Amino acid sequence: MMQDLEWILTRGVAEVIVKEELLERLRGGAPLRLKQGFDPSKPDLHLGHAVGLRKLRQLQELGHKVVLIVGDWTAQIGDPSGRDESRTMLTPEEVNVNAETYMQQFFKIVDRQRTEVRRQSEWYGGFTLSDVFNLTSRFTLAQMMAHETFRKRYEGGQPITVMELMYPMLQAYDSVAIHADVEFGGMDQKFNNLVGRELQAMVGQPPQDVLLVPLLPGLDGRKMSKSFGNTVDLNTPPEEMYGKLMSIADSMLMEYLTLVTDVPDEELEQIAANLRAGTVNPRDVKMRLAREVIGYVHSPEDAARAEEEFIRVFRERELPTDMPEYAVQAEGMNIVDLLVTSGLASSKSEARRLVQQGGVRLDNETIDDIGFVVEPKDTVLQVGKRRFLRLKP
Amino acid sequence: MMQDLEWILTRGVAEVIVKEELLERLRGGAPLRLKQGFDPSKPDLHLGHAVGLRKLRQLQELGHKVVLIVGDWTAQIGDPSGRDESRTMLTPEEVNVNAETYMQQFFKIVDRQRTEVRRQSEWYGGFTLSDVFNLTSRFTLAQMMAHETFRKRYEGGQPITVMELMYPMLQAYDSVAIHADVEFGGMDQKFNNLVGRELQAMVGQPPQDVLLVPLLPGLDGRKMSKSFGNTVDLNTPPEEMYGKLMSIADSMLMEYLTLVTDVPDEELEQIAANLRAGTVNPRDVKMRLAREVIGYVHSPEDAARAEEEFIRVFRERELPTDMPEYAVQAEGMNIVDLLVTSGLASSKSEARRLVQQGGVRLDNETIDDIGFVVEPKDTVLQVGKRRFLRLKP
Repeated sequence: MMQDLEWILTRGVAEVIVKEELLERLRGGAPLRLKQGFDPSKPDLHLGHAVGLRKLRQLQELGHKVVLIVGDWTAQIGDPSGRDESRTMLTPEEVNVNAETYMQQFFKIVDRQRTEVRRQSEWYGGFTLSDVFNLTSRFTLAQMMAHETFRKRYEGGQPITVMELMYPMLQAYDSVAIHADVEFGGMDQKFNNLVGRELQAMVGQPPQDVLLVPLLPGLDGRKMSKSFGNTVDLNTPPEEMYGKLMSIADSMLMEYLTLVTDVPDEELEQIAANLRAGTVNPRDVKMRLAREVIGYVHSPEDAARAEEEFIRVFRERELPTDMPEYAVQAEGMNIVDLLVTSGLASSKSEARRLVQQGGVRLDNETIDDIGFVVEPKDTVLQVGKRRFLRLKP
Repeated sequence: MMQDLEWILTRGVAEVIVKEELLERLRGGAPLRLKQGFDPSKPDLHLGHAVGLRKLRQLQELGHKVVLIVGDWTAQIGDPSGRDESRTMLTPEEVNVNAETYMQQFFKIVDRQRTEVRRQSEWYGGFTLSDVFNLTSRFTLAQMMAHETFRKRYEGGQPITVMELMYPMLQAYDSVAIHADVEFGGMDQKFNNLVGRELQAMVGQPPQDVLLVPLLPGLDGRKMSKSFGNTVDLNTPPEEMYGKLMSIADSMLMEYLTLVTDVPDEELEQIAANLRAGTVNPRDVKMRLAREVIGYVHSPEDAARAEEEFIRVFRERELPTDMPEYAVQAEGMNIVDLLVTSGLASSKSEARRLVQQGGVRLDNETIDDIGFVVEPKDTVLQVGKRRFLRLKP
């Protein structure tokens, strides 16, 4: 669905530098080159990444082209933004494997047909010391120390290698190498992306605009991060993703709906009003969120199936917690015999009638065959609305 | 002349890191590799450089080998030590010309036969971005900022490019590339040289020792520097060098004698005592200094000639300042006629006698030929001890 330009640059967007310039460029009609880099040492994408990827997709649908950069050289350094571990070099094979993994997720949201995949090796493979001088002589230490992470680490006495200082410049040079028109990133990439804009101007290219998206909070409200175990990974199966999205706090609901769905702005306002007024159950809004997200990450059919499954499990969760238990014989038991011996039916004829009338469910599935054999495993047997039995092997 | 090791490492030496280690190495008998770098954008050597070059020569005479590094790559950066201008790259031709100029001076002191000349291009010409990562990942920003110049410039708000931060590491890698055993430098090179020692240890080479010489003050007592115009360049002709050395302040005499001559220590002490007691004319000590220096920079014969010339000029300086002037005719004048018409002789016969008796000097040269023709130029005509005439064209 094609969206209005102004909406694309506003909804779920933290900052555009420079917005008027970018709007003009987009209205110009020529296809723009939308730069998106990735670190092949971190091939897993989560829903936080989807915020930006959806912007790419929206602009692709207007005819623009995504240039995906496999950061096989900067990965050797590791983005210093917000971290301080050091990296080891990936082998070309590891890069290949991880790039495949990444793209398998990336193209769940981004249109593969309107994407050009480039590798830093194309320009850094033949980089000479002269090239390094040419790059590193353009920026001062003070400019690099304007990067909050560098400054904090330096002032805090934590080591920063001179190599790490090169990271923003190398990422910036990527923009020069691919002639980027717009670079996309999270707010934590603002510094790096602006260095790219600056470098392009220095070498006589039209400086790229920068579109920054907000960080989506993790399931627990902290920063979404693998190390916190609070991510919704894009390759999470539909059922699991549904459950994860249902687990967010009510307070994060509107943020999620805004950042990772296309629910129209007016409808969002209505939902927010209803939530405030208590006229809608937050659970139902979360179900809407989960359907929307799974709808584009997987498919609408997957979303529907996940929802059914969720409802089933959800109902299961509403089973009484202190059901009587019953051990099924190792060779399995006929359903009619089981109903009688466990005491759920007073006679074989009552048991047969219960089964034939559809009043018996095993793990929520109706058992209507009086010849059915119950396996000796953990299941729940239900008769009517109120009588439950936890079966054990 | 072979010198005692302990003397070589003490006389005119500011610091040796680590002295006991270096003494042991030198006593080991194997020829050591003595690293000396130079910046081909600054091909002129002055007497301040001679302090270190004489150390190289002394060790060459014990069988060790000088490795002279033509810093054609670091020259593109420029040693940040004590400066903050930026550099432009030299063409290979400029490097060649400047290297020739440099070596023509360098080998006035250092033995060409025991010198290996290397260019940074040999190792930096094929340096890749991986090599740069390998180097720059070994050092932290904090380590580089221990360099006084970097720290002062950063704290003073002056720009330092990230390229400049690489300078000490690149100079350090030179030590690795040539397997240096000892690096020589001025006190301002201490930081750079120690980075070399550290890097060698990191890559598993025996870490170089570092021999630092003091900075020789310039003729006016400030730091010896081309920009102050207070240098004694090694390619200064003997006469001019003699005059420059005679111009130093008495207070700097012992420092110069100590740093740039081999006058034995005991004799130095005696000279110092005599100067303090006023029993020796400082002028005579300066003449000794000038002879010694010109003796090894040029040759003892050049030193003797320069001394004669200096004495002549010095005597000239003692001429009366208010001599009468006399304009010589444009076609020249016979000496006898000139003596009469200028009034220095009362008659032609007196004039002839004065000439024939050797009582007439033109610019301090005796004129004993009565047919001599005086040219119309600025000269001083002297008759006997007391009568002078300044001749003009």
